[in-house]
Amino acid sequence: MAIRVALLGTKFMGKAHSQAYRNVNMYFPDAPQVEMKVIVGRNRRETKTARQLFGWQEASTDWRATVNRPDIDLVDISTPGDLHCEMAIEAARAGKHIVCEKPLANTLADAKKMLAAVEKAGVRHLLMHNYRRVPAVTLARQLITEGRLGRIYHFRARYLQDWAMSPDLHLVWRFSAASAGSGALGDLGAHIIDLGRYLCGEITEVAARLETFIKRRPAAPGSRQRQRVTVDDAAVMLARFRNGALGTLEATRFARGRKNQNTFEINGDKGSISFDLEHLNILKFYSVEEPAAVQGFHDILCVTKGVHPYADAWWFDGHILGYEHTFTHTIYDFLKALQSRKRIHPDFTDGVRNQAVLDAAARASASRRWVAVQ
Amino acid sequence: MAIRVALLGTKFMGKAHSQAYRNVNMYFPDAPQVEMKVIVGRNRRETKTARQLFGWQEASTDWRATVNRPDIDLVDISTPGDLHCEMAIEAARAGKHIVCEKPLANTLADAKKMLAAVEKAGVRHLLMHNYRRVPAVTLARQLITEGRLGRIYHFRARYLQDWAMSPDLHLVWRFSAASAGSGALGDLGAHIIDLGRYLCGEITEVAARLETFIKRRPAAPGSRQRQRVTVDDAAVMLARFRNGALGTLEATRFARGRKNQNTFEINGDKGSISFDLEHLNILKFYSVEEPAAVQGFHDILCVTKGVHPYADAWWFDGHILGYEHTFTHTIYDFLKALQSRKRIHPDFTDGVRNQAVLDAAARASASRRWVAVQ
Amino acid sequence: MAIRVALLGTKFMGKAHSQAYRNVNMYFPDAPQVEMKVIVGRNRRETKTARQLFGWQEASTDWRATVNRPDIDLVDISTPGDLHCEMAIEAARAGKHIVCEKPLANTLADAKKMLAAVEKAGVRHLLMHNYRRVPAVTLARQLITEGRLGRIYHFRARYLQDWAMSPDLHLVWRFSAASAGSGALGDLGAHIIDLGRYLCGEITEVAARLETFIKRRPAAPGSRQRQRVTVDDAAVMLARFRNGALGTLEATRFARGRKNQNTFEINGDKGSISFDLEHLNILKFYSVEEPAAVQGFHDILCVTKGVHPYADAWWFDGHILGYEHTFTHTIYDFLKALQSRKRIHPDFTDGVRNQAVLDAAARASASRRWVAVQ
Amino acid sequence: MAIRVALLGTKFMGKAHSQAYRNVNMYFPDAPQVEMKVIVGRNRRETKTARQLFGWQEASTDWRATVNRPDIDLVDISTPGDLHCEMAIEAARAGKHIVCEKPLANTLADAKKMLAAVEKAGVRHLLMHNYRRVPAVTLARQLITEGRLGRIYHFRARYLQDWAMSPDLHLVWRFSAASAGSGALGDLGAHIIDLGRYLCGEITEVAARLETFIKRRPAAPGSRQRQRVTVDDAAVMLARFRNGALGTLEATRFARGRKNQNTFEINGDKGSISFDLEHLNILKFYSVEEPAAVQGFHDILCVTKGVHPYADAWWFDGHILGYEHTFTHTIYDFLKALQSRKRIHPDFTDGVRNQAVLDAAARASASRRWVAVQ
Repeated sequence: MAIRVALLGTKFMGKAHSQAYRNVNMYFPDAPQVEMKVIVGRNRRETKTARQLFGWQEASTDWRATVNRPDIDLVDISTPGDLHCEMAIEAARAGKHIVCEKPLANTLADAKKMLAAVEKAGVRHLLMHNYRRVPAVTLARQLITEGRLGRIYHFRARYLQDWAMSPDLHLVWRFSAASAGSGALGDLGAHIIDLGRYLCGEITEVAARLETFIKRRPAAPGSRQRQRVTVDDAAVMLARFRNGALGTLEATRFARGRKNQNTFEINGDKGSISFDLEHLNILKFYSVEEPAAVQGFHDILCVTKGVHPYADAWWFDGHILGYEHTFTHTIYDFLKALQSRKRIHPDFTDGVRNQAVLDAAARASASRRWVAVQ
Repeated sequence: MAIRVALLGTKFMGKAHSQAYRNVNMYFPDAPQVEMKVIVGRNRRETKTARQLFGWQEASTDWRATVNRPDIDLVDISTPGDLHCEMAIEAARAGKHIVCEKPLANTLADAKKMLAAVEKAGVRHLLMHNYRRVPAVTLARQLITEGRLGRIYHFRARYLQDWAMSPDLHLVWRFSAASAGSGALGDLGAHIIDLGRYLCGEITEVAARLETFIKRRPAAPGSRQRQRVTVDDAAVMLARFRNGALGTLEATRFARGRKNQNTFEINGDKGSISFDLEHLNILKFYSVEEPAAVQGFHDILCVTKGVHPYADAWWFDGHILGYEHTFTHTIYDFLKALQSRKRIHPDFTDGVRNQAVLDAAARASASRRWVAVQ
Repeated sequence: MAIRVALLGTKFMGKAHSQAYRNVNMYFPDAPQVEMKVIVGRNRRETKTARQLFGWQEASTDWRATVNRPDIDLVDISTPGDLHCEMAIEAARAGKHIVCEKPLANTLADAKKMLAAVEKAGVRHLLMHNYRRVPAVTLARQLITEGRLGRIYHFRARYLQDWAMSPDLHLVWRFSAASAGSGALGDLGAHIIDLGRYLCGEITEVAARLETFIKRRPAAPGSRQRQRVTVDDAAVMLARFRNGALGTLEATRFARGRKNQNTFEINGDKGSISFDLEHLNILKFYSVEEPAAVQGFHDILCVTKGVHPYADAWWFDGHILGYEHTFTHTIYDFLKALQSRKRIHPDFTDGVRNQAVLDAAARASASRRWVAVQ
Repeated sequence: MAIRVALLGTKFMGKAHSQAYRNVNMYFPDAPQVEMKVIVGRNRRETKTARQLFGWQEASTDWRATVNRPDIDLVDISTPGDLHCEMAIEAARAGKHIVCEKPLANTLADAKKMLAAVEKAGVRHLLMHNYRRVPAVTLARQLITEGRLGRIYHFRARYLQDWAMSPDLHLVWRFSAASAGSGALGDLGAHIIDLGRYLCGEITEVAARLETFIKRRPAAPGSRQRQRVTVDDAAVMLARFRNGALGTLEATRFARGRKNQNTFEINGDKGSISFDLEHLNILKFYSVEEPAAVQGFHDILCVTKGVHPYADAWWFDGHILGYEHTFTHTIYDFLKALQSRKRIHPDFTDGVRNQAVLDAAARASASRRWVAVQ
């Protein structure tokens, strides 16, 4: 039985999610068949183009009507954060399974409403923190679960980009708290918080500093009128995990030369791992369980069939994968979960926990104190 | 007007080429539309499965009939090398444009016949040396063409794998001269010869050594019967280029730990570049034209929109691409070339030149002498 | 005229400083001649051995008498931190120039006393933060001073080791607040604070967390008796610099697999640099002033004669230097400064500033608040 | 009892060897004591300066008289290659132990004469192929000897520099066959041949190509008169080892951006290692004996006390060593061998074997054939 999908959103994330629905059955023959029913956007012409390019059967500009169509099983929300809450609640009420882009919502309160809605409706829900399904990250989790790192002492993560550094860049939606909730914190920080939770467990308290380096930007491209930026350009954070580990987290759009460096290192008493999204096929791993003379960080190229997560679906050993298949893997796992009726993470509960950390970070920065995550 | 494609081959390369036809229009809206008409294989059931998974309209087991269908514009030959010649000649006679997997043929004589056939028929032809269209490699070529390396002195390349090292691995078609022509030489060596020609020009003479480390293998999986391996496990080569540069080339299936390391370095008097397919989004570049104190090999992450080859089609800056899109890029360029009626490389003339080098290498190894490339 | 040196300390730092005095004139012929007069230690036999191995003329166990000898020009204090204050004040009173190992003192109050003493006495003083004179770090400073990074937004540094992770390791002096002042904070954190100050300017406020993962250790090797560890195993810190940059700093002895990873990255609006002491001959540098297509982090091997700091003194281009010569360079510069009577950094004023940051970090951790550096 | 040393040579190698004699007893207290008696050079003033800087007791311009002094135990020959033979024979006749810089001689015939002389005289002899005693290389040998790589299939090595690329560089002694014997081949190639022999065993046959890219150079700095370069700028080689392994070796002074990249990789059926002198503290190691999921090249930082070769002599774990201590280690081992009367490698027999490979390479290049090593 096919899963009939409606996708809300036609831009970057719409394209990325479309790719996953379009190709998942090619690489993962055991997944339920996807039917790409409808793509929904605000702009009629752009949505028609997206329909054609990405391969959806229909285009629509009415998300509410689409969400309520009886021939839709799954609603995928790939819109800016300020729309997530209303869309997810409507989709839940309509009894649809939901895939939602991160961050779950722009506020903790909204995130909680969304969770309540899906739980009340009894629908399945997935939060698209796609980096959990980078094969190297999935392997990292396996190694930790197997105890290969032992007790964990340190998690240090940073997500560095540099696209926002020009003062001439105008006030796109990501610079506005109204549409984006926060800046680097929610956009990039949410990813590394999710990885921290996935790999090291819950964060219990944080200290933080949010900074807006460029405080006013052109209202529109080329405009002389400057408007206030209402989100952070960078967010730095100290964290304490429930298991006693110390965390340092940094998210910024002002790291010149770092285009998409989502990198972390975890140190345990028996071993360490590190990862960098710009080299996403590699996991580095150190183990004290090897002979002393040869201990060193391994460069594990996580593309060996029969060995590494998701590798059987793809090409020969060592033929590397791109960014987009973090989505393919996630959608695959969600389709399988729909079939098997097993719970899958990250879901909206993870979204609420993540939002609680973001919320604590913002309060910690404002109050100049350590703040407990609620 | 759509280009109607028939694909011959359902295995690894059939899958890789299918991916390209399937997705090229999504990422490159300016390309002619592809119509995935027929996939052809020997085994009826496997071919039907491939049809469904990869997204072809029809499946067939009769390549000759398919090639001659009036509703086919383009024939893609993704079969083992011993079938290329006959198929290409038939397709040329039928007036179809041709995409052919490398190596063009198993012998220089066959390669020349194929070239003669496509030239006589006046059809367009592409040889799938996909690595020319790794963005980093395309950038390397641009830098060389712009004179950023100056006069070239050295080309050193190696293509290292390790899948053949177990003596228990049975006599798959790649170990047989009858089906594969040669071993590491034609399989891997052909790739780095093509890169050498693309980046440094023609090779005029070679010395070489072909070696078969494991001389007999099980006839079938688990079989006790051993049959002779008739191809090389490894091939090493010295080369001289027309421009005076020295080349060292090495292709092997016996480099433990190297899964798919296709790597080269080129040294010119003004700069150097290096590349490694296991990190395919990176080009390393050194230039003497920078201030002395900061000269060093740059790690160029070749995924910046508006800047790097093919980047506009994909994701945000720094979001890395996988192996498969070397095919997508090549098919894109070929589709554009069909439209514009411009010549595109590598084509069958490149295949003949490449085969001439392979042929010279085999003769050089046998004769223990330097041999001129004919 | 030779500089007659007395060295207090015979252990690791005594050896490292001895190396510098022993070899500085060989590599830097323009430096004043060093006369290695006396080495002073607590244990007579060990001190005699050190004298012979390291090449000092005399051995003594009486530091106070030695410091007051008329035939000594320079006193080098390479003892544990709790002895620095008294020794430095005595040496200053005796009119000797002083080299002091970092951290300057175990408390901010002591550091200030030491500074007052040397200023009153009018002697020259050097604080041995040797990493400023890693050629790559000196080059980093040059690039920043030349404006190659533009306005600085981020400083992120970590100093990671793993030697303290075994719970069986007994209570060496470094685990005791009485002798060491603090743990990872003063031992490792002081280094990266110094680098931050050297490269980005003054730190004005911090948030921090100090953690002792293993709270009790054997009193002596193999002992069953456990005593309390009174220093931190790890210290994490957020910092704000006077120039508006954000800092994240981490010092730990619990980073499995990291033996001596003192690493930092600095992001400015025009470029970025990064460094790792485990690869100390390399500086990585990114500049937006290069052509877009080739922008990337350069791997600068900082060993080119006529180009890189200190390189003329050593071997051919690309012949790498070891850790020990960070001391040789520092002593060279101090000898030259004694000759020229120019001020040199880092000196005791830097030590006081550094200690003020350490002090603020400890208070910030205890109070769970951001704290201003005094 | 001290070993009284005379050093012939005051330039780069004289300095490097002096460093070793000067410091070996500081770091290796168990070595016999060195007495730095005499340094010998052609130029009186330069030799006096060298004496003072490097720490020799006396300076001389008469090597023959010095070699015959009764108060000399060990003669170290650090002169250009054309002087080695006469000096070594004289020293052997005088009954002195000999350290000789590589290559042993400029011709195979001379090398054999030198070996005959030391064997006849019964003196101990060391050939200074210092890279065997890079700790990472020594570790590589240990791993191979322990069988961690299994049967070896491939040795690939290159030694790349770029100092000779300017056509304005005049005809220094290294460009003259009369003084240097050969160019990149003997200067750089000899090093990687030695490493190949050390790690993989004897080379039995070779194919090669020597190339002189810049055929005429200024007779003196700034001179308009051009003289012919009589040595190779680059040498490339294929080799077959006695154990069946294939080798590719490349030595060049025309690899722009490579200052001192002496790098090799060895592939065996159970594992692989690789090394790069520009990162000399690192050995990379891959083993199939580890769990499949974590197999990858380890970055072994070869500076752990109690674990890695020579590490106990130096600083704390992870504190890296420089190029110069490859000499210190070699001299240490030779001093110990003098004491214990055990044979040590590489010695003059290794020099003869090495020279036989160089000789075969030159003949192979000239004859355009594979040539057996005699």
